[in-house]
Amino acid sequence: SGLVHIKNPHLDSMEEDVLYHLDLGTKTHNLPAMFGDIKFVCVGGSPNRMRAFAQFMHKELGLTGAGEELADICAGTDRYAMYRAGPVLSISHGMGIPSISIMLHELIKLLHHAKCRDVTIIRIGTSGGLGIKAGSVVITERAVDSSFRPQFEQVVLGDVVVRSTELDKDLAEELLACSKEIADFPTLMGHTMCTYDFYEGQGRLDGALCSFSSEKKLEYLRRAYDAGVRNIEMESTAFAALCGLCGLKGECSRGCFRRR
Amino acid sequence: SGLVHIKNPHLDSMEEDVLYHLDLGTKTHNLPAMFGDIKFVCVGGSPNRMRAFAQFMHKELGLTGAGEELADICAGTDRYAMYRAGPVLSISHGMGIPSISIMLHELIKLLHHAKCRDVTIIRIGTSGGLGIKAGSVVITERAVDSSFRPQFEQVVLGDVVVRSTELDKDLAEELLACSKEIADFPTLMGHTMCTYDFYEGQGRLDGALCSFSSEKKLEYLRRAYDAGVRNIEMESTAFAALCGLCGLKGECSRGCFRRR
Repeated sequence: SGLVHIKNPHLDSMEEDVLYHLDLGTKTHNLPAMFGDIKFVCVGGSPNRMRAFAQFMHKELGLTGAGEELADICAGTDRYAMYRAGPVLSISHGMGIPSISIMLHELIKLLHHAKCRDVTIIRIGTSGGLGIKAGSVVITERAVDSSFRPQFEQVVLGDVVVRSTELDKDLAEELLACSKEIADFPTLMGHTMCTYDFYEGQGRLDGALCSFSSEKKLEYLRRAYDAGVRNIEMESTAFAALCGLCGLKGECSRGCFRRR
Repeated sequence: SGLVHIKNPHLDSMEEDVLYHLDLGTKTHNLPAMFGDIKFVCVGGSPNRMRAFAQFMHKELGLTGAGEELADICAGTDRYAMYRAGPVLSISHGMGIPSISIMLHELIKLLHHAKCRDVTIIRIGTSGGLGIKAGSVVITERAVDSSFRPQFEQVVLGDVVVRSTELDKDLAEELLACSKEIADFPTLMGHTMCTYDFYEGQGRLDGALCSFSSEKKLEYLRRAYDAGVRNIEMESTAFAALCGLCGLKGECSRGCFRRR
């Protein structure tokens, strides 16, 4: 049917669903009217960048009116920012798995309440490149954890549940094909490693704590490279697991910084 | 000596330290002049609330000038917001352990570079109460994980390192004593449970996914209560572990919402 799957039997019996961190709700907003025609959702960490992305889409799609005046749909909260340009929703998710998870739970319910169909969701933004040219874009073939396993461990009532992090292969191929239509747009497929920590978790030598040598760092990053990892960030496994379970066609496609 | 301990032998040999997510650095800013007299750091999730808190402190401390005009010291980035009112720094950290960890690594280096002495750091904000009156403030006696253990598991180069989550007992007692000087300010000591997820991780029935019954949820929360947990949030174990290792006197003191 192309609808979003909510896997929660309790929701049907709730009189009202408050999407607390988005400052939206089923009784306070007409979600089908506001969002029913959304076909693409792009998510990224920084609120300013997601506004800039919405302005860019507004212009690219040739929409009328000034893109600079796009209003933050979640203006009533400072947890996340949300903008729309035609059928494209652009939302910030902050940094790390817990932050993107809260946003995705509420976004998925939003798309469900709004009766959206055939929605594609793409995570955009920046990441640390591994053995590739700075400025390259990595399309995630597989999201892996810090031990290079394609899985996400979710704690449910104190117990660990292991979930698949499979993404949409056709969408990945489509994105790669798009990149080839643009000159000087270095793009590749690779595994994306997702960590819970930016400093010690990603082998950085410049945190407040660092207990390892430069050699140990390089040995770990080499093992990651040999396992197919081409970029490192902090949200992809949770993104893949949640989108996959709820029937959203999802992909990650991120530009790479040179890692410090 | 009261100085902040940086446990990273690599830092001394670095020519410049860029505190990337705070938009500050040792070459671009005179950190001792800007921050050398800081004695208290208060951190919380929301940037708007941390601005409001700095304005409140500005007024409480009887500082000159209008508190409304306090400038965001991290205005060049939208990752975090930082304000100061006299010797008090007020910083936002976003939601979840990964987000607060990035901020704390850079804050701890900032306090080190600025040669601050005897700094006290307090996490403030909101949390979900457990078996207590909504509006109560819980001072964290012990930060525990989702299995009620007083520990934080940090992944370093793919390996799990277990860290203590002990907080400053004297500071906790001092905060409790302060609360007693104010009428109608319900405050208690209790364990604070820290989770990686707001919905499934905290037993909520209203996420996009929910695989458990209301009974199973209550059974888990009852076990948490019996283990001494009085509030649930998403940052305390990482906060306690990092502050403890770096010699910062730290505590968590959070108001409680009624959990949905």
